[in-house]
Amino acid sequence: MTTTLTGASIIAGEAVEGINGTTRAIDPSTNTPLEPEYSKLDSTQAQQATAAAAAAFRDYRATTPQARAAFLDAIAATIEGRREQIVERAMAETGLPSARLTGEVGRTVGQLRLFAGVVREGNFHGARIDPALPDRSPGPRLDIRQRRVPLGPVLVFGASNFPLAFSVAGGDTAAALAAGCPVVVKAHNAHPGTGELVGQAITEAAAESGMPAGVFSLVYGSGAEIGQQLASDPVISAIGFTGSRSGGLALADTAASREVPIPMYAEMSSINPVILLDGALSSEGVGAQGLAEQFVGSLTGSSGQLCTAPGLVFVPEGEDGDAFVTAVESGLEGRPGQTMLTPGIADAFAQGVSAVEDQQAVATVARGVAGEGENAPAPVVFSADLAELRSNSVLSDEVFGSASVIIRYSDIGSLSEALDELEGQLTVTVHAVDADTPAAEALLPTLEDLAGRILFNGWPTGVEVGHAMVHGGPFPATTAPATTSVGSLAIERFLRPVAYQAVPAVLMPEPLQDANPWSLVRQNDGVIAKGQ
Amino acid sequence: MTTTLTGASIIAGEAVEGINGTTRAIDPSTNTPLEPEYSKLDSTQAQQATAAAAAAFRDYRATTPQARAAFLDAIAATIEGRREQIVERAMAETGLPSARLTGEVGRTVGQLRLFAGVVREGNFHGARIDPALPDRSPGPRLDIRQRRVPLGPVLVFGASNFPLAFSVAGGDTAAALAAGCPVVVKAHNAHPGTGELVGQAITEAAAESGMPAGVFSLVYGSGAEIGQQLASDPVISAIGFTGSRSGGLALADTAASREVPIPMYAEMSSINPVILLDGALSSEGVGAQGLAEQFVGSLTGSSGQLCTAPGLVFVPEGEDGDAFVTAVESGLEGRPGQTMLTPGIADAFAQGVSAVEDQQAVATVARGVAGEGENAPAPVVFSADLAELRSNSVLSDEVFGSASVIIRYSDIGSLSEALDELEGQLTVTVHAVDADTPAAEALLPTLEDLAGRILFNGWPTGVEVGHAMVHGGPFPATTAPATTSVGSLAIERFLRPVAYQAVPAVLMPEPLQDANPWSLVRQNDGVIAKGQ
Repeated sequence: MTTTLTGASIIAGEAVEGINGTTRAIDPSTNTPLEPEYSKLDSTQAQQATAAAAAAFRDYRATTPQARAAFLDAIAATIEGRREQIVERAMAETGLPSARLTGEVGRTVGQLRLFAGVVREGNFHGARIDPALPDRSPGPRLDIRQRRVPLGPVLVFGASNFPLAFSVAGGDTAAALAAGCPVVVKAHNAHPGTGELVGQAITEAAAESGMPAGVFSLVYGSGAEIGQQLASDPVISAIGFTGSRSGGLALADTAASREVPIPMYAEMSSINPVILLDGALSSEGVGAQGLAEQFVGSLTGSSGQLCTAPGLVFVPEGEDGDAFVTAVESGLEGRPGQTMLTPGIADAFAQGVSAVEDQQAVATVARGVAGEGENAPAPVVFSADLAELRSNSVLSDEVFGSASVIIRYSDIGSLSEALDELEGQLTVTVHAVDADTPAAEALLPTLEDLAGRILFNGWPTGVEVGHAMVHGGPFPATTAPATTSVGSLAIERFLRPVAYQAVPAVLMPEPLQDANPWSLVRQNDGVIAKGQ
Repeated sequence: MTTTLTGASIIAGEAVEGINGTTRAIDPSTNTPLEPEYSKLDSTQAQQATAAAAAAFRDYRATTPQARAAFLDAIAATIEGRREQIVERAMAETGLPSARLTGEVGRTVGQLRLFAGVVREGNFHGARIDPALPDRSPGPRLDIRQRRVPLGPVLVFGASNFPLAFSVAGGDTAAALAAGCPVVVKAHNAHPGTGELVGQAITEAAAESGMPAGVFSLVYGSGAEIGQQLASDPVISAIGFTGSRSGGLALADTAASREVPIPMYAEMSSINPVILLDGALSSEGVGAQGLAEQFVGSLTGSSGQLCTAPGLVFVPEGEDGDAFVTAVESGLEGRPGQTMLTPGIADAFAQGVSAVEDQQAVATVARGVAGEGENAPAPVVFSADLAELRSNSVLSDEVFGSASVIIRYSDIGSLSEALDELEGQLTVTVHAVDADTPAAEALLPTLEDLAGRILFNGWPTGVEVGHAMVHGGPFPATTAPATTSVGSLAIERFLRPVAYQAVPAVLMPEPLQDANPWSLVRQNDGVIAKGQ
């Protein structure tokens, strides 16, 4: 089934033509604009989306687990049914290859289905029951029960680098809908057509599933104007954002300075340190050569435009480290760049690379070649020593794209100190064999304080969507280190606990009823028990 | 056992004389200063406390559950052993009666022991395991595990109205220590001696239990200077605050505008609406007369200086409502005020009462009489209609102390609209009998969106410390509605999740080891299972 792109916003199921100018996608491989034109909403039009979300909130949050899960499944099925059209449009808008985007469709629908399962399972209600103790001394205890309720309408800003999995029906949208929150998505202007296709799929799924129309809206407009307006709107109760540090911080300021401040979940900036330990480099297994090949693959995949791309690699001084550097050099030689997402991102990459290159104590290890077409700059790897990293903040600024800095270190003590000085990260990676265990053990507390995900003997790119995943981390990786934007724990972003004290049985919400009609795992007087 | 007050700060187990002036407690019943003088730290001295906390963090968070729980139990036992001295000093510093303070000691030690139990039980680790799926198609899944780790050193600002349960060893301190975070307490200048006695108890317990000395410090100084400095200190990773809206917002601004913003958990302002439904008022059970007596008791206890005091009572128009108002009138007549906590709080109460009194559409229902001694103003109850409440924000400002406004309403629809317009609250209370069920049911979603705790047929004062309690709520009740400051869920404030991907078994933290040595309840591939 193929649908037609209209170039309009979708507010509570209706197409709305904006009256505030237009915008178009650009094919970054050719710098040519794509049809159709997307009309941008003015502030009065955009406000209709939040009003519709507010109007839908209480009906939506009252939906049964079955109905809400079916809605999420219906979104997944509708997107899946249009995979080819979505992939084709996303290729034109982002320059990303077909295989990557096909995989991203799979991830997006898998994510929606994961949250459907979370809704059916119901652990997220966080049900707790402290039974009455009428005979307790010195005073009786009343019956007190706790569950989590949804916060209210959520505003989502998607990312340019994941036009599906972190965009209109991405992780924040799936988690918020699962929690019982209506969603207003500010469409990303770099992939408006992909966004509309997915927005249409959600809209159709909502109608089919009997959801209130205001449960979802997709709004086209200027981020600085309409985005900020939506973030300030009194009915919005939380914001999910994936993107640049400057964009995230501007929205975080808005969220904090509202009359009623709201949680702002921004995933922003990370350089994802990778630590190669001696044993791993000299191992007869993967070794220096294999690690270098893996590194180049991880760095250049998706043109390095991944939040978890390895921007900093710590390599020990000595022969094995030298062998790694040499292998990176030959691995990158002649390697062509791939099209980046937008001309603006390609420009920012060029500037970031220049800034690093301009540092006196930085050497260029290797550089590939520009790829075919526009906006396909050469991947590049620099090197510097630990002292330079510690004294020069340019080396720890994120350069979004295929650029990385190799840092040579002499001993675990000074490596550990340097890691303690880094800003918060989404990930930190260690390559280690058995012989490296003492070093890895010494580093572990540092790694835990540094990042949201610690991984061994792999590469940080590629984020599994599951129950145990954390895609988050200390500032500036995110503005909210206690949460994750990927995986089932993300639903907690959009919930808050409410206690029910001596509430009559007839009024008690299902998750807290004595009969436990939803068969939830609940905490009874501090003890977790299933189906009681 | 009696200890001597030194008038000094306690930094990492050592008494530190401040060099930045002095402050003294004042007995509010006589306006006379109390010995000893407390010396205030200058900024260099205060910084020693955060440095010590930072130095202690990794050792402290590596303590076993048994050791950490024993430390919390030792604090409780040490405080309990000095109950008489603590109560005596607190009476002099706060004007609160002996029975109330004795009860508060019990609550404080009970809270510490609750968290000791939480540490032993270990659910707070939030352990999740997604096992590897090597044969999954299209690609294998790696082993990914998740647990929560402590944020880092926590700064606590106690409240004047709970010199024990929300102060030096109060809920925030207990939750942070349980989570594995060292604590720096900015001592409240209204009860410095009570604070020191409790601070000494924690210090001794830390030494006895073999904890690193920097796990706890108690700092005397100016809130605007040293308090703000501590809140800006780079090593502080979260702030707990209970107090005024202005104080909380100032600290929230500081927390948000740091180079690295941190979570700021402020509990600030709440007027705790109470809704009387028709049936409850006309019931042959408690009825109008009984409800009025309960209301006056809840309003005047602790001189109304409770975060959950009933500042707004919705009463239906008609005879039964009139009977309630008349009974409040006679219940309050001649009732003496009790000493307030400080001269400043008594002044603020007088100003708040004047502001309400000055409103044209507000009537004074009843007023008690001033109590004996200083700072014991008369309790007072006003009334106004629903339209006035909705148009005049003075009526929904918190007046801290025994002052409340009765609002007469004509129907559930307009009551519900008025409730939807109120700011966020800690609590909302409904008095209802069976006949009121349809009205209560209609109101329930509104109540859930309004407050952190919904209670029926009781009064909001008195907060049970348990697993299901929520002492929190939407802004401005708190700055962080997703958490609670009372009850075992509070530990989550001071934790963040970390994912461990393909981490070798030998490096895996205990909560995530295959053998589950701490016998935790864990989530395995999305399914909660005990001791696996």
